[in-house]
Parts: sequence; C-alpha cells; structure tokens
Amino acid sequence: MSTITVPAEVPPVSDDVEQLHKAFEGWGTNEGLIIEILAHRNADQRKLIRHTYAETYKEDLLKALEKELTSDFERIILLWTLDPPERDAFLANEATKKGAKSNHILAEIASTRSSQDLLLAKKAYHLRYQKSMEEDVAHTTTGDFRKLLWPLVTSYRYEGDEVDMSLAKTEAKLLHDKITEKCYNDDDFIRIITTRSKPQINATLNHYKNEFGQDINKDLKADPKDEFLAILRATIKGLTYPVKYFEKRLRLAIEKTGTDESALSRIVATRAEFDMKIIKEEYKKRSSVSLDQAIAKDTRGDYEDMLLALVGTTES
Amino acid sequence: MSTITVPAEVPPVSDDVEQLHKAFEGWGTNEGLIIEILAHRNADQRKLIRHTYAETYKEDLLKALEKELTSDFERIILLWTLDPPERDAFLANEATKKGAKSNHILAEIASTRSSQDLLLAKKAYHLRYQKSMEEDVAHTTTGDFRKLLWPLVTSYRYEGDEVDMSLAKTEAKLLHDKITEKCYNDDDFIRIITTRSKPQINATLNHYKNEFGQDINKDLKADPKDEFLAILRATIKGLTYPVKYFEKRLRLAIEKTGTDESALSRIVATRAEFDMKIIKEEYKKRSSVSLDQAIAKDTRGDYEDMLLALVGTTES
Repeated sequence: MSTITVPAEVPPVSDDVEQLHKAFEGWGTNEGLIIEILAHRNADQRKLIRHTYAETYKEDLLKALEKELTSDFERIILLWTLDPPERDAFLANEATKKGAKSNHILAEIASTRSSQDLLLAKKAYHLRYQKSMEEDVAHTTTGDFRKLLWPLVTSYRYEGDEVDMSLAKTEAKLLHDKITEKCYNDDDFIRIITTRSKPQINATLNHYKNEFGQDINKDLKADPKDEFLAILRATIKGLTYPVKYFEKRLRLAIEKTGTDESALSRIVATRAEFDMKIIKEEYKKRSSVSLDQAIAKDTRGDYEDMLLALVGTTES
Repeated sequence: MSTITVPAEVPPVSDDVEQLHKAFEGWGTNEGLIIEILAHRNADQRKLIRHTYAETYKEDLLKALEKELTSDFERIILLWTLDPPERDAFLANEATKKGAKSNHILAEIASTRSSQDLLLAKKAYHLRYQKSMEEDVAHTTTGDFRKLLWPLVTSYRYEGDEVDMSLAKTEAKLLHDKITEKCYNDDDFIRIITTRSKPQINATLNHYKNEFGQDINKDLKADPKDEFLAILRATIKGLTYPVKYFEKRLRLAIEKTGTDESALSRIVATRAEFDMKIIKEEYKKRSSVSLDQAIAKDTRGDYEDMLLALVGTTES
C-alpha cells in the first residue's frame, strides 16, 4: 500500500552515498539527484544510506542536507530521510515545543500508529532526547488537553481482535451519558478512548451509533469552535478510521488558502510507505481530483517534485 | 545478586520433567523433590522445563502443580515457576480484581521494575489476558488512586543517567509547594512522580531534602492513616530505594501477627533472582536476625523449605 517506487535494481549503497555527496558539491545543489535517490529508496535502504554516508564522510547526512537545502523542500527531505520511529519522535518533540497549536500532531501520532510503532517511537525518543515522550507531553500540555494527550501517547494498547460486546454496550452508554451532560473531559470518557484496544473502541462506537442514532463524532460537534472537542473528534477518527483521518487532513491542508505545507509534508512523509495508496483512493472518491493533481496545482519546484515522487502520479 | 543456587551440573531437562511427573504420581506428592528441582533452576531453565513438560505430558506444568499442591506452598511454587514478565502480569491482573486493598501491589510492580521489565510485563499481559494492563488498572481503580496508578503502570520512563539539575530544583519546589498546600493529588505532583526518570526523581528529591530540611516521605506522613499518602510514600520509595522498599515490606510481612504470607511469597518469588542478596543484607542491618532465620521462625513445612531454598540460608 506504499506509493513510492523503488528501482528493480537498486545501486550499491556506496554509489548512492557518492552520488548524494556529489549533489552537494560545487556551485548550487543538484536537487533532482537528491530526489532521484532518496525518494526511491525504502526505509531500510535510507537507513543504510544514512549510516554509510556518516561512515564515509564523517558527517550526518541530515546535517549535510540541512546545509544545502531550504524551506519546504528541506523539510520534506529531512522528514523523509529520518527512520520512521525517529521521525515520529522528532515530530512529537517538535510539537511539545510549539505549544497548544501543535496538540493535534500529538493526537495524530498517538492515535494512528500501532502500539508497536508508537513504542518504537518512544524508544527512539529516549535515544534522541534523553528523556521520555510522555514526560515532555505531560510537562508541556495543560488542562483538558493534557488530560487527553498524556494517557494517549503513553498507552500501550492491546492489539488483538477480541472484542467484549457487553463491555462495548456499557461503555457506549457511558460515553453517551457524558456527552449528554457535556462532560467531555470526564475521567471515564478519556479512559475509554485512551486505553481500550482499537477493535474494542470500534465495537463500542458501532453500538453507540446503533443505539443512539448517529456517529459519536456528530454528537461531539456541539460547539464547532471548541478546540478540545475538535481534538477529541480527530483522536476518535485517527483511532477508528485512520485512512479517512489522513484523507481529511490532506484535503484541509491543500484547500487552505496558501496551503498548509507543514501538514502536507508531515502526512506525505509519514504515510507514503504505509497506507498512502488507500488514502489516495479515498481522496479521489471524496474530491473531484486525484491527490497528485491537487498537489501539483498547489505546490511548485523541487518541493512539488519530491511530494509527487512520494505519492506517485496517476496516469490519466 | 540472586540468592538461589543452581547445581554446577544441571540434569538434562527431560530428567527434570520426568522427576517432576514422578513427584505427582501415586499416593501423596513428593514436595521435597518439587523443591529440589524448581527452586534450583533459573528463570530460563524453568521456562524450558515448563515448555518440555507441556510437550511431554500434554499438560501445563502449572495446572499439574495446582492439582497437587495446596495453600501457601502451592502459591509460592506457582509464582516462582512463572516466567518473570508473566508473573508480574499475573500479580497485576490479580490486584486489579481484588480492588482497593491491592492498590499497593500495582504501585510496587510499577515503581520497582525497570522500564524494560515493566514493558515485558505489559506484553505478557496482552498475551495472557487479551487486554492491556493499563486498561484494567484504569478501569478498576478509582479517585486519587486511579490518578496515580494509571500513569504509573503506563509509564515508559527514560532509563539513562542524565539529570537536568535546573529542572530538579524547579520540580523540588513544586513538590514542596503542593505538600505545603496539602494538594497531594495535584496534577503536576503526580506527573513528576509518574513520568520522570528515576535518576531525575532522585536528583529532585535530593534537592528537596537539602532545600527543605527533610525527606519528602517524612513530609508525606502528615496523616499516618491516609491510604493515599501511604501509597504515595511506597511509590516514591519503590522508585528511589527499591531495596529498602522490599526490606521494609518483608519486615512488615514477617512481623505481622499471623504473618502476611501473600506479601512474603510475592516478594521472595519476584526478588530471589534479582536483588534478594542486598535485600537480605539490608534486612540483617535493620533487624536483629537474618531474613532466613526470621522466615524459619515464622513459617513451617514445605512452605518454609521452599522460601528458604529461594532466599538461601546463612551459615551461623
């Protein structure tokens, strides 16, 4: 379900590393060559490239890229080159530093990753920042946002398919009661969302819909301007329908006046090798154009080229 | 720092398994033989015995032991035979079922295990109970106890030695302010205790003592009958001085009228292969007798024999 293309015969890593080094030399930088190599290598291959580059030239490839590149193109290349767990650690750490306006990024990482991937991100966080993701999240968030995000990033959810239907019924009712009372920050409301397995939450929310008439996220739209409700809806969508979550985020990022490059780059870099193929299908269904056409219309230059290399172009 | 003794030449696992099976046969059970084998095998060897027993006799060794043994002896043998992560998962699950009076067991497991060992226990919990340790803890605990225990069991703390001294000062002051205000359940108070790395907490509490004149645990003794304060003190001791924590628990278990076999068995089974040697030294320092003498005085029969086989006897 990846949208990147890796050549049938990948050159030896020493060639890739040499070519990248050449791309940085002399006047100007050969951005095309950087895209040609990095966009068409999978996570393991990029990891090996980074490792071999450091051994060969005694410099971190990421530092070399930082020196050569600028702006949105620099950001997407750096995000892409990072190993997925380290990338999630980097994004989470950045979010904790940027304050409340980045809370949705923490919710996105914590809700859409598998338990195993979230755990790997936490391990990468330890290694890179000499502290834990959760201590930073708990330390830098406040109020209801902290009450939700702290257990959300800390959680190590069960990943099996077993579902307890009687529990689903009890907890669907509890969620509905709390929504009726407008107690969106209720302890048990947050407990259910942040600790239950995804299949269990799914069962609970299906029962909720059958029993109480509509999607929980519709009931959580009482006040469209309430930011806590918005992050609660995003979390629930990220947990139960990650593909739809990402499709909508991409759509909003592209439709925004001036384009939200930060969200666009983050989602393309984190999903290209995972579920971007289905996200694209969902995007096409939901919008009148394909994702790559929408990206091509909204971005330009090397940044556009890199994004398109990662999401793939549709034959028309 | 283990107190168990493993023979220089361990018999082939097939022999151990056959001997155990023989110990169950006929009239009565050969408890001595069970102790002779199981108490003198390390965790890896016991795991292999359990595996081979199941393959050979199509029965889980633990079920066979359950059928043959009773009472305190049964319990210590079962706890001991379990693989350490599975044992912690079992103890935590049992604690969530027993309600408030077992909260201190959750605090003990969460505060005294390393991040890695706690993570292994959570993985074992997934496998054994088809749900997560944290969802059960969050679901079954209430009020301030939930507020403390939920993040405590969920935490995946950083384990490096780096310490941020300026943070230690700020947070020592914050802890002191909250204690002065008697806000023991304050969000930030709990955040510091449940998310900071153990070396960081240690630095914070050292600063606390230097700056405010006495151990934080003395200041948390405002009301000796307050159970939340008791669990807070136990957690802090478990995080910073696990050996002293276990020594005190053992002492209280033995000194209690009638002996607290539940605590005695749990601590002997979980620490024998880890730090029981230093716990014993601490016990000897603190009491007038050695731990094994105290155990011999307070217990009897096969239960006594098994405990002494695990903690080792002192030459006098």
